[in-house]
This record gives sequence, structure tokens and C-alpha cells, in this order.
Amino acid sequence: MKVSIIGATGYVGAELLRILTAHPQAEIVHITSESHAGEVAAAVYPHLRGCCPLVLEPMAAAADIAADSEVLFVALPHGHAMKLGKAVAHLPLRIIDLGADYRFADPAVYAQWYGLPHEHGDAARVYGLAEWQREAIRTAKIIGNAGCYPTAGILALMPLVRAGLVQRGSIIIDAASGVSGAGRAATAANHFPELYDSFKAYGVAGHRHTPEIEQALSQLSGEEQVVSFTPHLLPMVRGILATCYAALRPGVSADEVDEAFTACYAGEPFIRLLGRNGYPATKAVRGSNFCDIGWHLDPRTGRVVVLSAIDNLVKGAAGQAVQNFNIACGFAEDTALDAIPLYP
Amino acid sequence: MKVSIIGATGYVGAELLRILTAHPQAEIVHITSESHAGEVAAAVYPHLRGCCPLVLEPMAAAADIAADSEVLFVALPHGHAMKLGKAVAHLPLRIIDLGADYRFADPAVYAQWYGLPHEHGDAARVYGLAEWQREAIRTAKIIGNAGCYPTAGILALMPLVRAGLVQRGSIIIDAASGVSGAGRAATAANHFPELYDSFKAYGVAGHRHTPEIEQALSQLSGEEQVVSFTPHLLPMVRGILATCYAALRPGVSADEVDEAFTACYAGEPFIRLLGRNGYPATKAVRGSNFCDIGWHLDPRTGRVVVLSAIDNLVKGAAGQAVQNFNIACGFAEDTALDAIPLYP
Amino acid sequence: MKVSIIGATGYVGAELLRILTAHPQAEIVHITSESHAGEVAAAVYPHLRGCCPLVLEPMAAAADIAADSEVLFVALPHGHAMKLGKAVAHLPLRIIDLGADYRFADPAVYAQWYGLPHEHGDAARVYGLAEWQREAIRTAKIIGNAGCYPTAGILALMPLVRAGLVQRGSIIIDAASGVSGAGRAATAANHFPELYDSFKAYGVAGHRHTPEIEQALSQLSGEEQVVSFTPHLLPMVRGILATCYAALRPGVSADEVDEAFTACYAGEPFIRLLGRNGYPATKAVRGSNFCDIGWHLDPRTGRVVVLSAIDNLVKGAAGQAVQNFNIACGFAEDTALDAIPLYP
Amino acid sequence: MKVSIIGATGYVGAELLRILTAHPQAEIVHITSESHAGEVAAAVYPHLRGCCPLVLEPMAAAADIAADSEVLFVALPHGHAMKLGKAVAHLPLRIIDLGADYRFADPAVYAQWYGLPHEHGDAARVYGLAEWQREAIRTAKIIGNAGCYPTAGILALMPLVRAGLVQRGSIIIDAASGVSGAGRAATAANHFPELYDSFKAYGVAGHRHTPEIEQALSQLSGEEQVVSFTPHLLPMVRGILATCYAALRPGVSADEVDEAFTACYAGEPFIRLLGRNGYPATKAVRGSNFCDIGWHLDPRTGRVVVLSAIDNLVKGAAGQAVQNFNIACGFAEDTALDAIPLYP
Repeated sequence: MKVSIIGATGYVGAELLRILTAHPQAEIVHITSESHAGEVAAAVYPHLRGCCPLVLEPMAAAADIAADSEVLFVALPHGHAMKLGKAVAHLPLRIIDLGADYRFADPAVYAQWYGLPHEHGDAARVYGLAEWQREAIRTAKIIGNAGCYPTAGILALMPLVRAGLVQRGSIIIDAASGVSGAGRAATAANHFPELYDSFKAYGVAGHRHTPEIEQALSQLSGEEQVVSFTPHLLPMVRGILATCYAALRPGVSADEVDEAFTACYAGEPFIRLLGRNGYPATKAVRGSNFCDIGWHLDPRTGRVVVLSAIDNLVKGAAGQAVQNFNIACGFAEDTALDAIPLYP
Repeated sequence: MKVSIIGATGYVGAELLRILTAHPQAEIVHITSESHAGEVAAAVYPHLRGCCPLVLEPMAAAADIAADSEVLFVALPHGHAMKLGKAVAHLPLRIIDLGADYRFADPAVYAQWYGLPHEHGDAARVYGLAEWQREAIRTAKIIGNAGCYPTAGILALMPLVRAGLVQRGSIIIDAASGVSGAGRAATAANHFPELYDSFKAYGVAGHRHTPEIEQALSQLSGEEQVVSFTPHLLPMVRGILATCYAALRPGVSADEVDEAFTACYAGEPFIRLLGRNGYPATKAVRGSNFCDIGWHLDPRTGRVVVLSAIDNLVKGAAGQAVQNFNIACGFAEDTALDAIPLYP
Repeated sequence: MKVSIIGATGYVGAELLRILTAHPQAEIVHITSESHAGEVAAAVYPHLRGCCPLVLEPMAAAADIAADSEVLFVALPHGHAMKLGKAVAHLPLRIIDLGADYRFADPAVYAQWYGLPHEHGDAARVYGLAEWQREAIRTAKIIGNAGCYPTAGILALMPLVRAGLVQRGSIIIDAASGVSGAGRAATAANHFPELYDSFKAYGVAGHRHTPEIEQALSQLSGEEQVVSFTPHLLPMVRGILATCYAALRPGVSADEVDEAFTACYAGEPFIRLLGRNGYPATKAVRGSNFCDIGWHLDPRTGRVVVLSAIDNLVKGAAGQAVQNFNIACGFAEDTALDAIPLYP
Repeated sequence: MKVSIIGATGYVGAELLRILTAHPQAEIVHITSESHAGEVAAAVYPHLRGCCPLVLEPMAAAADIAADSEVLFVALPHGHAMKLGKAVAHLPLRIIDLGADYRFADPAVYAQWYGLPHEHGDAARVYGLAEWQREAIRTAKIIGNAGCYPTAGILALMPLVRAGLVQRGSIIIDAASGVSGAGRAATAANHFPELYDSFKAYGVAGHRHTPEIEQALSQLSGEEQVVSFTPHLLPMVRGILATCYAALRPGVSADEVDEAFTACYAGEPFIRLLGRNGYPATKAVRGSNFCDIGWHLDPRTGRVVVLSAIDNLVKGAAGQAVQNFNIACGFAEDTALDAIPLYP
């Protein structure tokens, strides 16, 4: 399968390179970069030395690259993929977009939260979270790969929401991410001395992953869900932990909660249920496509607290994209994704 | 003022040594240690070399030490201070307990959450959070210094709860702490390779700081408050960030929220209000007695999100104890506590 | 190939599990643990959940396990492997010892530095550093896998020493390691708050890896080499950087130095030469079996400075052991070792 | 004493603000910033909120500021202080330059290593390392504050070099620094994800602190010293550890080495000798002006290994500048510098 990566020198693009290089059914035929065109990827990323001889092509070549590819992974800031998707809509290729452009069913939601009109709003597209949309992904032409926080939050809450166990309006998702989620651009905010040995929240009540989470939980529950979502920045590079709160509907038992999780995720290759009272840790999933989930009941408050951990660059981005690619192409779903987490 | 520290070789005790050594009105006359009696403190803690010539005395000497002290700082695991407090109740000294023994008005709550009966439940005592109990602290004989998470959580929510702006039952406190909060005992759980580069929750729906927070918020609001409290462990040493959620009562305006904070903390020497939309960071308070607070309104959900940051060993423990000491002794409240945070 | 791991719950043993689980020609038939016998490995190590169903057997079963294995990986503290090796010497299996017991040609050197007599000093054995001893490893019955610091130090200096370019007596190796090198036992010295955000040396002029380095450099140069070796502890988990100093013999040119490296490592699958003025970083090799090497000439002092970086748990321990296993068994040398480093 | 800080928004300038704000004999009258003129310092640095009401003035005001100051602290990149120093040479103020411009006795050395001619090469100036130049500092008009690495390296070796115990040409200084030493400018090289959890060398055989170290050791020993100096970048913010190697002259005893240290540093307020076999750690000096020193003899190689630890922003920069200020002004040398290190 001839695949190309549009935007290969961001952290997500580099992670795609790492994973796809080891994929026995994928041949990476083109990679592009805005800032490093003409260089070999290994000149930009020291870990790739000796592992990846590909030369970065300019962004301007994206349309030609699409014509020479069967699957296009797009790892660009939002706003670019929809232009490219529209431009190559006539081609018989699949697009897996790791940005936000194809995540929303309603273009108006995208326009509202991302501040620009959607230019390809009529495109058929599927939300790329395999544990929810696997069947649709099999035949999708455009896959809007789920965002990193939404992956952690939706996977934590999907079993309960789908089973109708939680009260509408009660959901709060408090999450923390490693700094790689903010991308490769060096800014004063991400300067090492500013973040090391510190912890803070950001984007309270306005982070763009909020509507993505709400879209999923609303569809899953069949009623409109409004969610409080608070991201935090951890003094580390990889990993997201989501701590999710919801009020249980009156009378819901602990067993019903347990069963919702086990039923929802039976047979899932990348969901590891730690069970009631389980404590996922970001370290235990690092470098892998796993999402570890544990849950806790609090009879005093009537709430359930669900914890989920992912590697934001793998299950939260590049790994999930390859999972979607595997599903769409009919490969074993864990092809190139069976790495055991790197621990300690 | 002759002061002694019972339990000077835990992290809290060492921090007391650091702060009190620089206190112009305090003379440290005795320090004790369970495991290092007979050694100089600087043999246990390398940072104290050349700064503190005191020799650690055995715990067994505590009663005698009390007789030779005007103020006793007790930094022991819970269960010990109440025995000592009872034994020296006849002496004219003040006790500032940095453990949990004297934090609860109701001994039954202590017994329930800490798993042992209170042996000094009839003692007159004051909860040692100066911003709430300053007047009572002035004349207290026993001060139960506020816990680290409760300090961050209560200071974040006190203005809103006291002003009656939030709905009962809606409060969730999601907090994260550096590892020093778990103390100096080396365990498999706190082994460097297990915690470095990782993040996880612990104590969900059962952490012992929960009833301490509920006691304060209930008294402040005049109605019983039940709170969800979830602590997390950060891959760093010092610092707590509390992210606190509450549903505003219908009709509460943003200005009312702002005014609640500014009115509540006018003139407070250690509260720094970052204002609406402010983002405290643990790094900005490191090594200081400050509590930085910012708040965010979310009209979509009707919730307010309050963020607070402290250094858990200073404002969350030793610094707060010295603040209480200063109040009780009539010294300027910031004596020995005016250090600017260490940044970056 | 039936392989077993004696000592599977230390960090090195767990890393062997991680790598060997993915090895297509290895079947892990037994794993043992001193402290966790009877448990599944995934109960001890959360990253192994869903990846490794093996049950830990008691150490006492080691001899029986040897009889049921074709290759035995031994990851125990020094002193144990030689007893086991002697006990199973009659069996037709290969032993790859990741400890120090079989690293020294001269049992007296072992006795002197490790403080106990060698009980299997007459055993035929090969030093397990493939880039130096590949041919001997092919047919070895007992392989003494090279230590972590020695791997970094010897690989950095082998080209120059073998080519006779450096002055005898001038070698200094200054190296730093992540904390995983100190093992999984929680001690006060490795307690998170003590090591985080700090850096220090240890074992100056007495670390047990010194004679191992000297043995190699002496054999490679044909003259006795005495070396200054100083290890340091980094506030991180994985990775060793060795900074190696040597005085060049008079008249040695920069080209001769360059050629020594390129000639020595031509065709090596795991050595990545960054060239003259190259700067290896531990992050660029994390999770991989690579050793990155760069070198710098200093005409002012007449010294060459060689820098090498490895992941101490992979190329410095478990990865190198699997590399030796592959060589000894005739498999492709990079089988199960072709992972691209995890970056950033 | 009216003092001003030219360049107050770099990390060194901010550290000067932190220390001088607490100095009872210093009144900070002006502070400047290239990029933040017109803002209050606390708007740039969150830790300063409530602690420092000063407004940043433009750099262009530097000459006027000099005229209104008794002491000028200059914390600018090299090349700027000499221009300013020349421009205000007629004024009766003292200048303490924290950059490199006034560190070299020979302007040609400066020109060679810093790549630009010295414009104020005839100015009377003193090297600002109090433990070596205290007497000259008392009356100096221009003090070239010692660099961070040189402070650690010179203090480690001064006793031995001054006493003539080490062989000429044998000195190697291998040092590692926290990232704050690279300044506040965000670059790709200092982007959090690139440095976190990694370790590497930089500037091998060419770092500009090399001639500064050589100048000091040459003057102290009375013979020209050429030194190998290798800096490394630690994944942390504050702290330098220098590991210094030197061959002892034949016949030098351990007692002579010990005596050299104790004699050299008797009565020094900021040198803490950990003695023979002592291990300094950066954590134990964090936030303080201490330099901790330990030394180790290696009879096998004939070398001595001296270890020294400082906080690069305090003893390596701002603290040392205030120490020089105190000496020059006749204040107690530890005024505003008596903070106990922040630990853990």
C-alpha cells in the first residue's frame, strides 16, 4: 500500500514515520515538510538516523503526491487538510487527517470553535476513533482521526454514556498532557525552564477539544451533552491522563458500571481495563497504542470517576491513525502497533 | 521565643528548620528524630551544612522538650501529636501540629477517616488556616495546621462558598501534588524510576483530606457540603495545583464572582489573585508562602473553575505553620516568610 | 528456540521480557522471580498487561528450568550466576549472563573488585560485546554480557585504542546514567525527591565497571591500560552518555582518527557514527539498541574527546543480550532489535 | 546604596531582582529591558507578583540610569557592557558586569574567543571571583563577575593549583549545567520536548568559558595552563556540577591535598568543604550562594578528582554579583545571601 505523509516533521508526523517504517504492508512513498524540504528526515530527527532514508518534499507537491499515493496521512495544523482534501477529492485515495478539519459532522461547529469557515464541509467523512466507529472506518474515504484529549476522554466515558448510566450535564473531564501535544514549534511558553518542574492548567472553558468530546458523547447518549473540559500541562513529554467525573443516575449499581465497561470493550485490542479501583499511569502505556482505563465509585457523592491513560502521540495521534489505516485497508488491526510500552 | 520541632527529619520538619533558622524572633532550642537521634541535622540533610548546628534528640525526650519550649511544632505522622498534646496539656506552651490530629472539630470524623479513636478529642483547638481562622489563631493553645491539599482547595473556594454563590453538592476538587507530599520514606511506589516521566491519580473517593475540606466548606457555607476530591501525583517534588469546579447558583454574575475573591482576600499577605482568566503555576510559588489564585467562568456549563497553586511544603505545611506561629505570637505575619519564589 | 529468564522482575529482566516477547524465533518458556513467584509478570509490571501471560516461577526452580531451556538469560545480582552456571554446566544449554560473573578473563580481578571468590573461574566464557567479540560469541556456551557503562565506554574508545592512536595512561571516562541502572530496589538514595532535579557523581575511583573497561582496552591495545572512570546519576530513567578523553599520540591526524572509527564500525548494525564534531544525545537512542558516537579533536590540548550514547537497559543490558543471542543462534543480528528510538 | 539593573528580564537579571529586593542596604532605582520596556517586572515574571513594583525602562536610558545610580549591575549578552562601561567611564559609579566583557586581563584573548574587538580594553577591572580576588574587589570600579562554569571549575581547582600540587597540562574539567544557563530566549534547541529526559554534551573543545578558566588557573599556578573543558546540558533548570581531573605531582600525599583545601577556604562564607570522598549534589545548593566541594584520590591513576556544585544562577551569576557588591560596598559579605538551599 503506497502511503505518504503530508507534514512529516512535526512530532505527530515523525511518530507516523516511526510507526509506518515498521509496517510490513505500507510503503512510504512521499513525505513533506514546510521548513525542511530537500533534507532527509534523519537530518531533522536524530532518532531516525539509519532508519529512514526518505527525503522531505515541499508542501507544494502535496497534490502530486496524492496522485501517487493510495493513502494520505495529513499531519498539519487545522485549516490545511480541508483545502488539500477538496483539491484531491477526485482521486481514488484515502485520507487520514490527524488534524481537526474532518472531525466534526457539523461544519458550523468547526467554524465556531476554530474561527474559520469549513471549505470542504460537504465531504463524506468518518470520525476516526476505532472503538466507536470501526465499521464506518472500514469503508471511509476521509477519516478525521480523533484528537488526543478526546480519545482519552471519550474512551473513558463511552461505556457509561452509551449505556445511559450517567446524568446529563454532570460530566467533567479534567486532563493533563505531556508537552509534545503542543507541537514542535519553540515558543516562550514551551521553553524548557518555564515548564520544567511546574504544573498549570490552560484553555479552561474554551479548549477546542471540547466540542469534539461533546459531539461524541451526545451521539453516544442520544441527548445533547455539555461538558466541562480542563486541560493541564505536565512537566513531561508524552502521555495524557484523563480524570472524568459523572453523576450516576439514581439506582445504578456498581455491577452495572463494571458490566458497561467489559461489554463495551470486549475484544478490543488496545483497551486494557484495569477494573474497578484501577489506576492507570501514563508511564505504563508510553510508546504503545494502549488506552488503560480504571473506574471508581463514590457512594458519598453519587459520582463515578473514570481514569484513562494514553500516549498522546500514539493512541492520541499517529498510532490511532495507523489503527484506522489498518482497519480501512483490511489489515490486522494491530499491525505495526504491537509494541509493548517502554517501561520504566 | 523558644521553639522546638518534634519530628525534624521528615521533609516538613526539615522545611520548618529551613524557615525557622531565619526567623529573627524564634530560637530553635530542640529538634527530635525517630531515626537519627544523636546526629546533627546537617548530617541528615546536606542542604543544612553550615546552616544549622543543632543535634537531633530522641523522640522520648519530647515531654521534657515541651517543658523547655514556648512553642512546639509537631511534624509527625497522625496519631502521635494527640498523645503528646495530651501528655503536655498542663504546660503553658503553644502547640502547632502539622499532622491531622487537631484538624477536626468532631473527633468522630477523625476516627472514621483515620481509623483510630481520638485520644485528645476534648482539647480546645483551632484549624490553622490563617485566611479563615486568623482571629482564633491569635489566642489558640493548640493549632491544627491545615493539610496541603485542603489549603489549596479551601483557599480556592472559600470566597465563593462564603458568599453563597455556588450550588450545594456541585463541588469537585481535582488536584495534583509533587512527590514530597508523600514524605521521606523510600517505598517501591515512590522509587524514582516508577514516578519519573509519569502521571497518575491515587486515593480516588477516599483520600483523608476529603473530610477536612468538607468540614471547612460546610462551616463556611452554613450547609453540609459533600465534595469529590481526586489527588494526583506529579513527576516533580514541590507544588500543588488545585482545579476546583462548582456550579454557580442561577443568576450569579461574573462581577459577583470577581468581587467575592477581592473582598475575601483584601489585605491578605500571602494570597495573590491573578484575577478572572488567570492561570497560576506551581513554579511561580515555589519556595514561597504564596497561594496564587485565578478563576474562570464557563457560561456553557454554568460552572466556575477556580485554580490555586501553592508550594505544598511551605504554604501547604511549614510556611503556614510559621504564619500561624507569627499570628499567635503577635509578630508581623510575614516574618521569615517573605522569600520571593525561586524561579525558573 | 526455548529461552528462559532467571530474574525477570528487575528492570533488566523486564526489558528482556519486553524484547523477547516480540522475538519471532524465541519462545519464552520460564521466567523466575525471587519476590514475586506465583504471580503473572503483568501483575508486577503494569506495562506488560495484555502482552505477557507468563507466570513467575521461584528461583529454586532455576536448575530444572535450565534443563528445559536451550538458552538461559540470567539477570541477577553478581554472585548468583556463577553458582547457577556451575550447577548446570553439564547441560547442553547456552547461558547469557547479564551480571558481572562471567565478564572477567581473570577470576582474581573479579574477586578483587567484587569482594568474593569466583566459583566458576575455569568456565569457558566470552565477553558479550558483539562489536568486539562477535566471532567468539557465535560458538560460546557462556556469554558474559558487557556492563552498561563499559558498553558505552569501550565502544567509544575501541577504534582509537585498537588503532594505537592514543597515549597509554591518558584515558578518562566521565559518564552519566539514568536511575534505572541502579535497579528496582527502593532505597533512600533513589527516593524520588532526592534525585529529581539534581545531579551528582558517585563511585569515584572505585566503581566496579572500571576493571571491565580496563580489561577491554588493555586487550584491544595490547598494553595494560589504567583508566579513570567517573559515573554520575542523571535525574532521568534511561540513557548513558560517556564523555571519553584521551591524549593522541604525537602526529596523529584528524583523518586518521576519522578513519579509525569508520573502519572499525563498517557494517555494524547498531553503531551510528555521527562523525567528527557530532553530538549524541541519550534521547535519540531511547528504547533502541543503537550506540551513537561522535568525536572531537582539541588541537590546543592534544586530546580527542569521544562521546557515546546508549539506552542502558537496551544496548547496555537486555538489547545487547538479545543481540548476543541472535549471533549465537545464527539469527539475523537485529531480530527483535530493529525498533526505532522513541522520540521525543 | 542606589543600584540599577541593566537587563533585568533575562534569567540572571530576574535573579538579581529576587536577591536585591531583599537586600537591606540596596535600593533598586532602575531596571531595564530590551523587549519589555514599560511593563512592570511582575508582568514578565509571575513569581515577582506582589514582590516588585518596579517598571522596566528602555535600554536607551542606560546612560541616564548610570548617572542616577551608585552601582550598576549589567546582565546583558557579551559585547554590550563594554560599550556602556566606556560611555559612563567618567561617572563615579561601580559597574558589576555579569557578562564576559570585563573578565579577561588580555583584550586579545577576549577578541579571539568572542569574535569581536574589545572596545574598553584599557579599563581597570577586576575578575569577580571573591574567593580569589576579594582584596581587589574591595576597591574595584569595574568588576567582571566570574562565569558560571568558571566559578565551579576554578573553585574546585584553586586550592590544588595554587599549592602547586598538580601537573601542568593534566587538567580536565567535565561539567554539566541546568538549562537556565542557556538563557531565556526560546529556541528549537531548548524546546521542552527536545531536552526533557535527555543528556548531551555541547561546545566540546571550544566553549568560551575555557579561556576564562585557563586565565585563572595560569595566574594561580604561575605557569600557563591549557585545559580541556566539556560542558553538558542537564534535563533540569538550575545547578552546575563540575567534575575536575588532574594528575598529582609525584609524591603528593593525601594529607597535602586535604590541607590545600582547608587552608585555601578557611573562613570562606560560601564554600562548604565536604572533605575527602565527599559528593556534592546540585540539589543541596539550589537557590543558595554556596559552592560545595569534595575530592577523591585515585592511587591507581595518580589523579585527584575534585567535584564542585553550585546554583548557576546564584553563585554562578546573580548571587556572586551581590557577593562582590557586598565586598565592594563594605557590607557583610553574606547580606541578602544567607538563604538556606531549597531542598528537596
